[in-house]
Amino acid sequence: MGKYTIGVDFGTLSGRAVLVDVSDGSELAGAVFDYPHGVMDETLPDGTKLGMDWALQHPQDYLDVFGSAIPAVIKKSGVSPNDVIGIGIDFTACTLMPTDKNGEPMCFKDQYKSNPHAYIKLWKHHAAQNEANRLNDTAAKRGESFLSRYGGKISSEWMVPKVMQIVNEAPEIYDACDRILEAADWCIWQLTGVETRNSCTAGYKALWSKRDGYPSDDFYAALDPKLKNFVGEKLSRVVLPIGGKAGVLTEEAARLTGLLPGTAVAAANVDAHVSAPAVGITRPGQLLMIMGTSTCHIMLGDEVKIVPGMCGVVEDGVMPGFAGYEAGQSCVGDHFEWFTENCVPEDYRREAAKKNMDIHQFLTGKASGLEPGQSGLVALDWWNGNRSVLVDADLTGLLVGCTLQTKPEEIYRALIEATAYGTRMIIDTFAESGVPVDELFACGGIAEKNALMMQIYADVTGREIRISGSPQAPALGSAMFGAVAAGSAAGGYDTIYMAVGPMSKIKDTVYRPNKKNTAVYDLLYAEYKILHDYFGRGANDVMKRLKKIKLGKIC
Amino acid sequence: MGKYTIGVDFGTLSGRAVLVDVSDGSELAGAVFDYPHGVMDETLPDGTKLGMDWALQHPQDYLDVFGSAIPAVIKKSGVSPNDVIGIGIDFTACTLMPTDKNGEPMCFKDQYKSNPHAYIKLWKHHAAQNEANRLNDTAAKRGESFLSRYGGKISSEWMVPKVMQIVNEAPEIYDACDRILEAADWCIWQLTGVETRNSCTAGYKALWSKRDGYPSDDFYAALDPKLKNFVGEKLSRVVLPIGGKAGVLTEEAARLTGLLPGTAVAAANVDAHVSAPAVGITRPGQLLMIMGTSTCHIMLGDEVKIVPGMCGVVEDGVMPGFAGYEAGQSCVGDHFEWFTENCVPEDYRREAAKKNMDIHQFLTGKASGLEPGQSGLVALDWWNGNRSVLVDADLTGLLVGCTLQTKPEEIYRALIEATAYGTRMIIDTFAESGVPVDELFACGGIAEKNALMMQIYADVTGREIRISGSPQAPALGSAMFGAVAAGSAAGGYDTIYMAVGPMSKIKDTVYRPNKKNTAVYDLLYAEYKILHDYFGRGANDVMKRLKKIKLGKIC
Repeated sequence: MGKYTIGVDFGTLSGRAVLVDVSDGSELAGAVFDYPHGVMDETLPDGTKLGMDWALQHPQDYLDVFGSAIPAVIKKSGVSPNDVIGIGIDFTACTLMPTDKNGEPMCFKDQYKSNPHAYIKLWKHHAAQNEANRLNDTAAKRGESFLSRYGGKISSEWMVPKVMQIVNEAPEIYDACDRILEAADWCIWQLTGVETRNSCTAGYKALWSKRDGYPSDDFYAALDPKLKNFVGEKLSRVVLPIGGKAGVLTEEAARLTGLLPGTAVAAANVDAHVSAPAVGITRPGQLLMIMGTSTCHIMLGDEVKIVPGMCGVVEDGVMPGFAGYEAGQSCVGDHFEWFTENCVPEDYRREAAKKNMDIHQFLTGKASGLEPGQSGLVALDWWNGNRSVLVDADLTGLLVGCTLQTKPEEIYRALIEATAYGTRMIIDTFAESGVPVDELFACGGIAEKNALMMQIYADVTGREIRISGSPQAPALGSAMFGAVAAGSAAGGYDTIYMAVGPMSKIKDTVYRPNKKNTAVYDLLYAEYKILHDYFGRGANDVMKRLKKIKLGKIC
Repeated sequence: MGKYTIGVDFGTLSGRAVLVDVSDGSELAGAVFDYPHGVMDETLPDGTKLGMDWALQHPQDYLDVFGSAIPAVIKKSGVSPNDVIGIGIDFTACTLMPTDKNGEPMCFKDQYKSNPHAYIKLWKHHAAQNEANRLNDTAAKRGESFLSRYGGKISSEWMVPKVMQIVNEAPEIYDACDRILEAADWCIWQLTGVETRNSCTAGYKALWSKRDGYPSDDFYAALDPKLKNFVGEKLSRVVLPIGGKAGVLTEEAARLTGLLPGTAVAAANVDAHVSAPAVGITRPGQLLMIMGTSTCHIMLGDEVKIVPGMCGVVEDGVMPGFAGYEAGQSCVGDHFEWFTENCVPEDYRREAAKKNMDIHQFLTGKASGLEPGQSGLVALDWWNGNRSVLVDADLTGLLVGCTLQTKPEEIYRALIEATAYGTRMIIDTFAESGVPVDELFACGGIAEKNALMMQIYADVTGREIRISGSPQAPALGSAMFGAVAAGSAAGGYDTIYMAVGPMSKIKDTVYRPNKKNTAVYDLLYAEYKILHDYFGRGANDVMKRLKKIKLGKIC
């Protein structure tokens, strides 16, 4: 009789549960539950208006995912809850909430339900930029060593700026709450009745490291006297390593999910990072690209090294026993969306419609007919700034090589190529910092759908690329960690490394670099690099000056 | 009783005659005759195939313009041929033909009518690039001083490369013909029965100067031994200054045109240059922009100075007694055409159609709502290379400052602004070379139709701009020179300067720089200049390398 685990992937707009066979990773059933409150970016449920750049969520939606999607996969699969040995979850991050000491969200309390700061700040809540700037200034002035682990700059999306915003704008919430934690950890708390923190969010989003812990109280006091005891008062110094067991299902959680009390629950995880074992990554040198509107790069290393422009390096952050590296490109799918919305002529739309193709398929078809270098175009893929390796949100996009013969599909392909050059820049920077990359994996919608793009990436990087075998790599990864939480005695695995062989999924397709193309792309990448350094490293700060001129006009 | 003159403007696809009142320059009638053979760029009339980049015309078409458009304006205006005191013409250039000693075109002769080289090579015949390269190399090696009068480089569109192509590919035509001349001068020959050459085409297209004459026989011999006596054998060392009288109508030409024998005929002219007096230019410092698919800049100077990147400086080349300067931007209207054909989204087209606007009007409307600098974009206007001031056809277009919020109208406006920066670069270069520009004039379709563009030009250059009062500035200019050929005794004028006061036409509208906008554009132009010099003067030859990579792939 088989054993099964459930992985739940909490995305930006919905939660998805999959029920997976522990023996071979096959997915027996999946179910998606759309958050009733979605992303609250204009008003609270009671009509309270939100400011610019806010993005909130409602914790009831997550409970409803447990109460809806888990019973649904049990029912669809016909598997008995007796044979479900573990659960794992992954989440967007930093997605942050204040609760009381029992884990009750502050927004569930009547006196705070009209206070926006009582709710969950979603990862893409961008209203704490001033706080992030202040944090970065203070850390730089104090020479805080953690900065170098995060490419020199802390994002406004991360924990501390969001907490600073609460302190600034709603000190009463800060004072009243007992805990501030990732929604991921809160969900685990709801399942197990025990508060835990995981090394992934703590490391990548809350400045924690296994060796140094959190930044010092002095540092927090320098940010705001009120924050002096932030770690002691609101966080937890006990951080479970990824791959750990957080606890077991409570009676109440068992009733909610339809599973048995005592079912093993894994420590929480982050959607990108949890995907690494799902595609079979077990060793340094293997880099996973999670490709969507932006791209997140996840890689293991033997030790913590400082790589310029990475998003973070965290011991046990991805897989236990390794340093987990994260890097990122801010604009990938968004690039192509921008292009199709703003730059595609009417006759292309008409022709695509006639052929029953969506516009991306149509443009990809036309772009596939071009040889590397044929367009004469090179772009800098900075339409949304540059995360790795320059960590500079004020950089902007550039296109060079236009002629009166330049066609839309040439620009489209140049944008694809530019994102591939950006990836190669990251790979090269890792290698130069002593973290070599020898094999590429990709997951996410773009990786699955766009063969041209993947071939270009293989050609530009000169490396083979393998594609996730599951379209739901995060949920599969979470189910794998569920099997590890259960352990071999219960029919699972004792380590994530043991789970990878049987459970991970990779497609048979391998994108292999075409030598002829790689030779041309080496020339083009050399041009990209010259432009990248000229515009990105201070020789000509025209992009920043143009932004200043622009803002001067708007203000 | 009034006196009248006729100006005939020979364009690329048609000839246009206007009949003008000498007393006030008012146009009484106009008529257009489309060339029956148009531009022959694929086959000769008998089906003979043409090579890549060829563009020929048929001389019969020009005669038909005389025989059709002149009688038409006489008829329409009701003016008696007795009161038509002179004719002037202007032409595209270098538009070149071989004839026998009587002026009979070689292509009229049965034995040559299937030989492409017997026909007229239109200005945009681009099949002599190899010859132009050889000419430039040879001239540079020999240290020929004429090069500096032409911005250091001779275009493949000009006379000598086209003649070299005849020598290379059809030596029998070169040997058999007695004369090689501009179609403009040939037309005057047909009217007057006398062969003349004019200082405008001789100076700007055939390397002639009033002081130095043509290049030496030694130079021509270095190009090809066959060309040693080219000037003596095929050209004429007698060159009429602009404003001169070429002769009077013959009996035969009178029959063709319906005018009286003996009517005064002016020396031929070029369409751009002849427009200067038509807008009232009479002194140094006044620069005329003839704005169409590309822009041609015409200006007077007290003496011949060497300005980097100008197209040419010719004594008596525009107005007698002055040095006439020409500069150019290779891509102006073409820029916007490229943009509307390749980059305008469907919903913009739909909205424009709903509002009954053409797409340029629609985009201009949207772009008008933007402030200078608001888009955060700067472009290099090199989609078709750069003529002045870099003289480099291998440069390509660049756009910097793109974000995910960038809209089509912002790019459209950035392209307009880029052409304005290009103009300012020309003006500044002239000023730095001791040829200051204080007043701008504009003619051509864009100048008349696009108020936004003209305001941007005024703001970017910080100078007032006046617009031609006649939509047919070249034809009016030709009619003015017709009045000068007739002279005051016949009811005309003795000099072109005397004709300018009464006959030139300028609109009441003056585009005046807005100080606030100019201040922002000063900042943006500084950015343009940095990029211009970085990409255009050798610091980063990425554009050329991309072209080489591109060509390597195609070959």
